[in-house]
Amino acid sequence: MLDFRPIFLVMGVFLATLGCAMLVPALVDIAHDNDDWIVFVAAGLITVFIGVTMWVTCRGADARLGLREAFVLTTSVWIVAAAFGALPFAWSRLDLSHADAFFEAMSGLTTTGSTVIVGLDHAPPGILFWRALLQWIGGLGIVVMAVAVLPMLQVGGMQLFRAEAFDTPDKILPRATQISGSLTGIYIALTAACAIAYGLAGMNLLDAIMHAMTTVATGGFSSKDASIGYFASPAIEWISVGFMIAGSLPFLLYVRAVQGHPLAMIRDEQVRAFFAILLTLAVLAWLSEGQQMDYPSATRFREALFNMTSIMTGTGYASVDYGLWGPLAAGLFLTATFIGGCSGSTSCGIKVFRVVVLFENIRQHARRITYPSGVFVKRYNGRPLTDNVSAAVLSFLFLFLACFVVLSVALSLIGLDTITAVSGAATAISNVGPGLGPIIGPAGTFAPLPDAAKWLLAAGMLVGRLEVFTVLILFVPAFWRR
Amino acid sequence: MLDFRPIFLVMGVFLATLGCAMLVPALVDIAHDNDDWIVFVAAGLITVFIGVTMWVTCRGADARLGLREAFVLTTSVWIVAAAFGALPFAWSRLDLSHADAFFEAMSGLTTTGSTVIVGLDHAPPGILFWRALLQWIGGLGIVVMAVAVLPMLQVGGMQLFRAEAFDTPDKILPRATQISGSLTGIYIALTAACAIAYGLAGMNLLDAIMHAMTTVATGGFSSKDASIGYFASPAIEWISVGFMIAGSLPFLLYVRAVQGHPLAMIRDEQVRAFFAILLTLAVLAWLSEGQQMDYPSATRFREALFNMTSIMTGTGYASVDYGLWGPLAAGLFLTATFIGGCSGSTSCGIKVFRVVVLFENIRQHARRITYPSGVFVKRYNGRPLTDNVSAAVLSFLFLFLACFVVLSVALSLIGLDTITAVSGAATAISNVGPGLGPIIGPAGTFAPLPDAAKWLLAAGMLVGRLEVFTVLILFVPAFWRR
Repeated sequence: MLDFRPIFLVMGVFLATLGCAMLVPALVDIAHDNDDWIVFVAAGLITVFIGVTMWVTCRGADARLGLREAFVLTTSVWIVAAAFGALPFAWSRLDLSHADAFFEAMSGLTTTGSTVIVGLDHAPPGILFWRALLQWIGGLGIVVMAVAVLPMLQVGGMQLFRAEAFDTPDKILPRATQISGSLTGIYIALTAACAIAYGLAGMNLLDAIMHAMTTVATGGFSSKDASIGYFASPAIEWISVGFMIAGSLPFLLYVRAVQGHPLAMIRDEQVRAFFAILLTLAVLAWLSEGQQMDYPSATRFREALFNMTSIMTGTGYASVDYGLWGPLAAGLFLTATFIGGCSGSTSCGIKVFRVVVLFENIRQHARRITYPSGVFVKRYNGRPLTDNVSAAVLSFLFLFLACFVVLSVALSLIGLDTITAVSGAATAISNVGPGLGPIIGPAGTFAPLPDAAKWLLAAGMLVGRLEVFTVLILFVPAFWRR
Repeated sequence: MLDFRPIFLVMGVFLATLGCAMLVPALVDIAHDNDDWIVFVAAGLITVFIGVTMWVTCRGADARLGLREAFVLTTSVWIVAAAFGALPFAWSRLDLSHADAFFEAMSGLTTTGSTVIVGLDHAPPGILFWRALLQWIGGLGIVVMAVAVLPMLQVGGMQLFRAEAFDTPDKILPRATQISGSLTGIYIALTAACAIAYGLAGMNLLDAIMHAMTTVATGGFSSKDASIGYFASPAIEWISVGFMIAGSLPFLLYVRAVQGHPLAMIRDEQVRAFFAILLTLAVLAWLSEGQQMDYPSATRFREALFNMTSIMTGTGYASVDYGLWGPLAAGLFLTATFIGGCSGSTSCGIKVFRVVVLFENIRQHARRITYPSGVFVKRYNGRPLTDNVSAAVLSFLFLFLACFVVLSVALSLIGLDTITAVSGAATAISNVGPGLGPIIGPAGTFAPLPDAAKWLLAAGMLVGRLEVFTVLILFVPAFWRR
């Protein structure tokens, strides 16, 4: 039997924290003389109350968190957090439906950045701040989970990062607590640096803080309908590029840098591959844009780099409508959507290390065909790559693509047109944000979609964010036996 | 250095055979009082002359065919055969351009079945027969290659079939010759049975022979613009279903059946999975059709089964326009396009055994996540599946999909609309035949496409037909070193 006590314990702690976090947007609303502050206080009190109750009831059960409990906890904590995080959206004067509120909260917590709110420029400041805060909390949660939990669950090849993650398989929780301290410190430092940079570049304090939170979380919620494009500032775009990339690098390597190994970052194979792929895609998009658009070459390069970084890191800010750059550019942006950033960061998608493992496998197979009697060793970061990890990574890739196809077909069946269904499925499962086409493209929102599509897309975000297997394993009967 | 003599030897034998085969459509044209017979005789004489010259010059070099020579031979023999096979198309009164003639010949030899000829109902009988004969020869070539050559080249996990293929790695050619004898006998017997069945169901002699050749080869060239739909005969559709399936089963298991092991076929894991997938897809398509179309249920089931079998086996006959069956059906047909039939048959696509291996890998990964300390063995046909084979299969799957994506983008860049580019790339690389949309859909032809698209699609057919790695390995510099 599953022991639900440690699950409720951790969930309680998380809910209590989330409830306290709701008081921050309440303060923002009060400072702006906005009546919605009462909504945040009410939602916060309810969330804290339920959280503390669960926490207190299950105190002392933290050592009992086994492997299966960890799986159930990981998935359910995101769903429950999204449900409570949706309360302010439903109760505020935006008056969102259940589906809309849950969609917005899930999009925030998974750092996806798709929105159903029309007219951000006139939305209440507290709501705008809550959206940004949800992404910031979600981003931190993802980093802690990817570094401290998933490697032990061995999901989709994440065991590659086990040795680095100072793990001891039986005591998941104590280690997670220990390591999450240093990760949180780095996360806060990066966000503060980003906010200061935005402020110096001309944003007001509130915009700087909100955009810093969604940049480092590679989330992509903006407080403006025109996204980063609103500021029309090259400096802000360059700052954004820098911190989107900072949020997409393995956070454990920041810890290593602080511990006195600053070169670990640039020696890491995943980091190198990430920069190589990003630059290649950006340059190709730049050339492709050059055939369609008639701007100065330097402006085009900044646009190509900004938008490609935004998509590949899964942030989803837009500065221009890259849907007009032709079919090659569309192919490049779709590729970037799927690849995503580095594992162990706030970024999402397939992750660069899996692309590296895939490439190593194909290369080894090609060499084996050419020299059948040769002995070739696959390597990742200089260490041999076991066939076990390779098989896990490749299984992940297929299940990821299968989920994308199933979600696309399901959205089509609901009645969405092909471009909306396919790009919506891709953007949800890769946690990027905007889709393609007139409805959900960079210039549109997800509001016009039917409720069923919003629930499906929210489920897709969760599955993509939790590395597919973490969620799908719960549907395998063998998981529940014994 | 590569030894080109055994390559020229085999190519010479093949060209001489191909040249002699051109005399058959010449006879058909003579019997129908059609002047084009002279074209076939001229093309045949040239092909035989060049083939015999190569053969005689390189006599006795057959034992020297090593691994790398086998790779070069496999790819080049298909290109050269398509070039010579295109001669009658270019010289006949259809007067096709170079691109059109090569496209048609490559589409024939790879058993794809896409056509650029408009107005089959009024085309010369010799040309129609030549198209069918090209597919029949191509189908036989594929079976021999898949059973006797590819397992030794270890391409994309084909080493799974090594033990069964009585191989000795160093002497590829003698074994291939020995085994191809029994395969050819079975191939001829199946074709004859199919032709008799078609004749009994009402086709005239010529139509029965031509359709039997393209059914067993799972090729899909028809002598009618309306394809099998022209005959409007349920009996013919059922016969077609039976022999398309017969052509998609592993031919080596027919040999085993003749040798006294008739149960080997139904015990084979790949065969069972093939039937399970085909029936599932057909039933789902039937249900999906039911929501859109208003025919009797039994008629709809026959239509769903016929068209699904046609697409999954890579034949490409059409009886109705299944583009009207809604988005779920489109997804099902696209899935069938990619999966394809069994390995070691005339069928094409990813192949069912790779789907089985993929499924085994995902299942093992799920079990390993649930019980990290458990020991699980992947199996294929009751024997353990090595991680080596798994990695090869999964590498193949990715390279196959990557080729599809690259081809789609390239076709888009040439200026094709999205549905034509994507479905054209899918149908070429999976050797199925018809695409989707108004231009290359079941009711259209490939004639309106620009020449560049035709060359690209012909290259895609070759890459798909030769299991990707066989062709792409030639572009790896390391292959040519030493």
